[in-house]
Amino acid sequence: MENKDRNIDWRSACPISSALDLLGDKWSLLVIRDLIIHGTRTYSQFLESPERISTNILASKLELLTCLKLIERTNPEAASRNNAYRLTESGAALRPVLEALGKWAGTHLSDFHANIVKLS
Amino acid sequence: MENKDRNIDWRSACPISSALDLLGDKWSLLVIRDLIIHGTRTYSQFLESPERISTNILASKLELLTCLKLIERTNPEAASRNNAYRLTESGAALRPVLEALGKWAGTHLSDFHANIVKLS
Repeated sequence: MENKDRNIDWRSACPISSALDLLGDKWSLLVIRDLIIHGTRTYSQFLESPERISTNILASKLELLTCLKLIERTNPEAASRNNAYRLTESGAALRPVLEALGKWAGTHLSDFHANIVKLS
Repeated sequence: MENKDRNIDWRSACPISSALDLLGDKWSLLVIRDLIIHGTRTYSQFLESPERISTNILASKLELLTCLKLIERTNPEAASRNNAYRLTESGAALRPVLEALGKWAGTHLSDFHANIVKLS
């Protein structure tokens, strides 16, 4: 982002709050998960993930994450749906967040989520 | 939760996805943050946080987090708004998630969030 704070309604100066201002929803970190953990790259591959993201949510999340420079298109000249995506350094740096979420869920949700994949 | 998977629309068996099914919004982890990091306990204290959570969102988040057994009321007999809350073991175990989010934001958002508190 060239203009600081542009278009983002930061709720406070707290870094945790700021991270959630950007990524506090049910889908953004799943798109990042697919790129980091599953090697997902293309629009159609994202649609095949088991959570069955809808096409309109996927398109908006790819656009948002690109705007935030957490991901980038490998060929910006191509049409959006024919493109592939890769992580930027800032996006790849979210791995510890995903690992912490997954470890917490594997330990603390398995008592009542019957089908959760328990982590070793 | 006594009945497994009750009322939760799990999108997949992925632990990251499951964690986001419960906590993937802009407010739930901020309530947990207040309890873990700021020592917040009472309804009125939560309202004083700089993000200015609204009363209806706060009430719904406290109810949800209690239902999920991530927090509990210190005196369940008292009226909801006169009560205080504390973390359960599962709630307190979210500390690494908050730390990872805060560390990421302090490093990777400070370039364009002018006011963010940069972590050392």
